[in-house]
Amino acid sequence: MSPAHKLCMIPGPIEFHEDVLQAMATPATSHVAPNFIPAFGESIELLRKVLFTTGQPFIIAGSGTLGWDMTACNLVEAGEDVLVCNSGYFGDRFGECLETYGAKVTHLRVPIGESPKLAAVAAALKAKKFKAITITHVDTSTGVLSDIKGIAEVVRTESPETLVIVDGVCSVGSEEIRMDAWGIDVVVTASQKALGAPPGLCIMGVSERAIGVFKARKTPVANYYANWNRWLPIMNAYESRKPSYFATPAVQNVFALHVSLKQIVEQGVEQRFVAHKEASAKAKKFIHDLGLTLVPTKVEHAANGMSAVYYPEGVAATDLLPKLAAHGIVAAGGLHVEIAPKYFRIGHMGISVTEPERGHLDATLNALKASLAECGYKGAL
Amino acid sequence: MSPAHKLCMIPGPIEFHEDVLQAMATPATSHVAPNFIPAFGESIELLRKVLFTTGQPFIIAGSGTLGWDMTACNLVEAGEDVLVCNSGYFGDRFGECLETYGAKVTHLRVPIGESPKLAAVAAALKAKKFKAITITHVDTSTGVLSDIKGIAEVVRTESPETLVIVDGVCSVGSEEIRMDAWGIDVVVTASQKALGAPPGLCIMGVSERAIGVFKARKTPVANYYANWNRWLPIMNAYESRKPSYFATPAVQNVFALHVSLKQIVEQGVEQRFVAHKEASAKAKKFIHDLGLTLVPTKVEHAANGMSAVYYPEGVAATDLLPKLAAHGIVAAGGLHVEIAPKYFRIGHMGISVTEPERGHLDATLNALKASLAECGYKGAL
Ligand SMILES: Cc1ncc(COP(=O)(O)O)c(C=O)c1O
Ligand SMILES: Cc1ncc(COP(=O)(O)O)c(C=O)c1O
Repeated sequence: MSPAHKLCMIPGPIEFHEDVLQAMATPATSHVAPNFIPAFGESIELLRKVLFTTGQPFIIAGSGTLGWDMTACNLVEAGEDVLVCNSGYFGDRFGECLETYGAKVTHLRVPIGESPKLAAVAAALKAKKFKAITITHVDTSTGVLSDIKGIAEVVRTESPETLVIVDGVCSVGSEEIRMDAWGIDVVVTASQKALGAPPGLCIMGVSERAIGVFKARKTPVANYYANWNRWLPIMNAYESRKPSYFATPAVQNVFALHVSLKQIVEQGVEQRFVAHKEASAKAKKFIHDLGLTLVPTKVEHAANGMSAVYYPEGVAATDLLPKLAAHGIVAAGGLHVEIAPKYFRIGHMGISVTEPERGHLDATLNALKASLAECGYKGAL
Repeated sequence: MSPAHKLCMIPGPIEFHEDVLQAMATPATSHVAPNFIPAFGESIELLRKVLFTTGQPFIIAGSGTLGWDMTACNLVEAGEDVLVCNSGYFGDRFGECLETYGAKVTHLRVPIGESPKLAAVAAALKAKKFKAITITHVDTSTGVLSDIKGIAEVVRTESPETLVIVDGVCSVGSEEIRMDAWGIDVVVTASQKALGAPPGLCIMGVSERAIGVFKARKTPVANYYANWNRWLPIMNAYESRKPSYFATPAVQNVFALHVSLKQIVEQGVEQRFVAHKEASAKAKKFIHDLGLTLVPTKVEHAANGMSAVYYPEGVAATDLLPKLAAHGIVAAGGLHVEIAPKYFRIGHMGISVTEPERGHLDATLNALKASLAECGYKGAL
């Protein structure tokens, strides 16, 4: 890593392991090569372990957003109702995507920094029959963690047929998710966050139940590239170690994901949850001790893979972020349109927390303290 | 490159330059980082040079297939007629994609190995008003090169408002294309063929006229991830060297594409056309001298970036391809469903032809000769 490299401590893309980067530089390889097929097939198998599911993983060239399209066009038919648990920017956007494919969307909005309440979800489900409910597990714009286990339980009680869809783009690999045990039907994610690979892959896990709902569709899928009818045979072929073609996979990105998934499973998925909780607790305590305030109103519903933090009085984005960069730390500005200039975000996912000996988090927190001082912040420093 | 590396001489993915691979291994970089924004912005500018257009390039995480969706969902409205010049597998598929978004597709099919005839295109355009015509520039399943310049001329004469859409996935960077001079409205391509980068990017060039048609749509775009309303501001922002976000770009893949595009433009796009013609002439002569027959019925409409070749009597895919692999050359089997077991395909694109000192093409042709002999083929050896 060049000395000029600044640590990428935003909530994705995140710092990658050297072996992951090396896999990105794999020389030209056919998408049906004898060394590529098992890497793809094993990645599918490893995803099942990461998501604790017997369902169907998908790995497609694209990004997390494409996973919204995949969900909307394959699982929802025009005119069907979908309940969107909306804890920020990504709830708004997922809702727009669903509407594009004809879904009738009801937003269950919470105030900025709050997480969706189980009672409100239960009430909404009692009021109307929903084909699906979506939950942003970690809303990257607010750092709020939703209680997907609790919400899935409420759904199974109030409206057992409603599909439970989790936007896990900013949570898979950093937050506890147990698809089958918790009754989750879809997890949408991407390569560039806590799965520890570069951006370029849309990744999903889909329960057998949801695949059944897909197969029972009455109307055709109104999308070509995102159509599971095209992709299911491809995923099955790679998993059976057979060549197949629909659209060229991002070969190098899949090799890189494969390396990262192997590391994650070898190091232990449970252990990974613990490491992210510990790192987050450390970050949150440091932030609190500096006298700063988190965007999430309670630490119990703050994400473990990132922190969204209000600037203290007198400090602005234009001051703090460049100072952090001068200390070698790349952090992110605000994203939620109502409060964007008022807060910043740091990521603490992947090797930056599972390999603390790299010192990424310490460097980030120390840089934060120093940068705040340089901004003239006296606070609790 | 490890000694175990076999040359990837299929019609994409192709062999990459070392500097391209090194860019793939760029350490974690934010999609709005000060070093990424100019690489993305400049890639957009370089694409204009490669495509000879003042129109709008797009670079999106995905693959070539996604470019079909982008074309179909942004430029065609449900119920509109589209004429598909169909010279093989990729014409069938593009047609299916267009139908997914409600287009009424008329296929102008040619026999296997033929290219679309100008008179037939003219007749079809006289018979019905088409919103758009699509042409597979090089049909990778047959190695047939279509006369996109001639067809575009016919369109401008017979039906000037019809949009001319070129599937250039297997031609951009290896075959002559002059979007503006020839009156071409859309070129769909991908990163992994003659643009010389790893797979993972859907790449397009869209004329100002087509953007105008897009902006004048009466119905909403029925796709979220592929919607140009989302992507136009993003492409404009990166080109103006400003940060922006809709969906996370494949940062490393864009860095790699940027390196390859710089090489292509520095070495000269015109020179690149010549190099591909020369390499192809050499390959075709060698193939002919071996007594083998090309799938294209005439060498004048055979692609310059690849060759599709029938197995001689008594030689089959299961014989020849493993023998080529044992000689360190990865070639591809047949793809066109009607003749798939009867032919094979080799690619000759990118550094394998622009840097002949690497010896890729010679190695491939020599391996072909040796492998045929090992298969017991006597022919003209
Ligand atoms: C919660 C959440 N959902 C969806 C997305 C969209 O993913 P992508 O940017 O990879 O398209 C993001 C991206 O940051 C996200 O954080
Ligand atoms: C002519 C042509 N069109 C479209 C495609 C589809 O592109 P991709 O495989 O990148 O999705 C290909 C891929 O080989 C192609 O050769």
